[in-house]
Amino acid sequence: MKVLITGGMGVIGSEATRKFVHAGHRPILFSRSRDERLIRDVLDRVEIELGDITDFATVENVVEKHGITHIVHAAGSVSAVSTANPPLGIHVNVMGTVNVLEVAKKLGIERVVYTSAKGVYGAFTGIYGAPTYALVDEDHPKVPVRIYDSAKWMAEQAALYYAATYGMDVLVLRFATTFGPGKTERHGKMGVTSQIIEAPARGEPFHLAQGGDERDDFIYNKDSGLGIYLATTATGLRDRAFNIGSGVSRTLNDFADIVRRHVPGADIRIGPGGNFLGAAHAMYGIFDITRAREQLGYEPQWDLEHAIPDYLATLRQSEVSNA
Amino acid sequence: MKVLITGGMGVIGSEATRKFVHAGHRPILFSRSRDERLIRDVLDRVEIELGDITDFATVENVVEKHGITHIVHAAGSVSAVSTANPPLGIHVNVMGTVNVLEVAKKLGIERVVYTSAKGVYGAFTGIYGAPTYALVDEDHPKVPVRIYDSAKWMAEQAALYYAATYGMDVLVLRFATTFGPGKTERHGKMGVTSQIIEAPARGEPFHLAQGGDERDDFIYNKDSGLGIYLATTATGLRDRAFNIGSGVSRTLNDFADIVRRHVPGADIRIGPGGNFLGAAHAMYGIFDITRAREQLGYEPQWDLEHAIPDYLATLRQSEVSNA
Repeated sequence: MKVLITGGMGVIGSEATRKFVHAGHRPILFSRSRDERLIRDVLDRVEIELGDITDFATVENVVEKHGITHIVHAAGSVSAVSTANPPLGIHVNVMGTVNVLEVAKKLGIERVVYTSAKGVYGAFTGIYGAPTYALVDEDHPKVPVRIYDSAKWMAEQAALYYAATYGMDVLVLRFATTFGPGKTERHGKMGVTSQIIEAPARGEPFHLAQGGDERDDFIYNKDSGLGIYLATTATGLRDRAFNIGSGVSRTLNDFADIVRRHVPGADIRIGPGGNFLGAAHAMYGIFDITRAREQLGYEPQWDLEHAIPDYLATLRQSEVSNA
Repeated sequence: MKVLITGGMGVIGSEATRKFVHAGHRPILFSRSRDERLIRDVLDRVEIELGDITDFATVENVVEKHGITHIVHAAGSVSAVSTANPPLGIHVNVMGTVNVLEVAKKLGIERVVYTSAKGVYGAFTGIYGAPTYALVDEDHPKVPVRIYDSAKWMAEQAALYYAATYGMDVLVLRFATTFGPGKTERHGKMGVTSQIIEAPARGEPFHLAQGGDERDDFIYNKDSGLGIYLATTATGLRDRAFNIGSGVSRTLNDFADIVRRHVPGADIRIGPGGNFLGAAHAMYGIFDITRAREQLGYEPQWDLEHAIPDYLATLRQSEVSNA
């Protein structure tokens, strides 16, 4: 197999890139612009192609040139962009995905894996919210609230439509609340789970007015990358959409406790209560990851106790921070 | 008020155009191409602008030039196009709507009315399908199946997002199963409710293997136009999304009986059972139109008994047919 990873230098894409490289592949990374900082360690084992994901000829040429057989479509416009500029966010996330699907259809790509988002489920209310946090499986109703999440859902619909209509092998992965190096800088406010690690690592305070008690499903992006790798290579699948998360509920106070253990003198203060993102709807829910476990062989490798020191170690070696 | 009607020469748009003209307005009709056949009777009381609905500058120029205060956005790519060419259908229906919303936002348009589709609700199953056909209100879950309907849903999400985020006045109308002159020619297979009238009117047979007993909510496009007109002019609204239908359930056999009364010797044969569209999912459901009645003052004017002879009379005067 020869894999193209769109957004392969990004926050989640770079972890997928690393997984493929470590498994012996030489992935092609497609991106709008060149930023090697998150893939420095594997730079000599990838190839990079730059271009616009919404342009058919560009994507087609890259796929043909490299004899691509599998596509991981992780390129997208982050939620902050969709909020600031809805037309741009919708264009990139919807039409970009449709474009990848069209190329895949024309050139007979064996599998496309689309990286979607938890937000397609919308607000986690009733038994799915605090304090019960009933597990959310893939059949949970899709009632996206933010325009970003609506666009991700529309892209999912396109992906699943191409699969059903053209007999293509297309999978959709929905990630829980992700954290990992690079997210704070590139994803803006949504990176609170990265700020709480990166600020103390720089010797700066992390103060948040509320939310220490909110429970959420946090996934370290090395596990996100694992999920992508497994989804690209798994066989005998019965379903097309998979939750990729930790499957357990933790709090921002848990983050704080662990950071304090590893960063002496860390100045972290978090107010009580829920909603650490200060969001207008309840974005906090815990994934049922049974389907990914059973069909993809996915098992989270990184609980907070191990992910946070790993994150801190990465920061010490990395050029990417929130500086 | 000065109203721009995108798609104003189309199957539904033309009926909206007629309502505005008869109420004393001089609407501006925006279309990709000029086809006067459905608006011949009011041609001297409208103005026509041609252009691409997805192009910001074009739409902006038209809105500024005519001092537009209200926009009816009825331009779209029909479902047959979305099936044949998903990228085109999604581009026109999603990005076209986003473009109209952006122009409306920039230029302070007082109200935007978006013409959506019944298909956003998806399959009508359980109590909402045969044989019980429980009424479907606007809060019904949105689980679109066809890619066309997903795109209409995404456009709705954008419309409602712009309303919520930017304080704009944007409404969404979801039409029941529409029928009326022009639909067969322009909308393809979905026009079975027009074919059953137009074929006998031309002296041709109408034979359908199945579906005579299926119940559905059929709306004559003069009522669709009424719904659009009322939604554009109504005040004191509490909601943003409205079902526009007949609110009652009829069958294709009802159509046949009425056509036979008005077209002596009509050769109509319809097999029994349901699913007259031969669709892969249950597309047949009956709208609860209470909200439109209460807030828009909408009341259907055309039952089948009156709509079908009106349709036949229109055909005799019209150049548009399925010939």
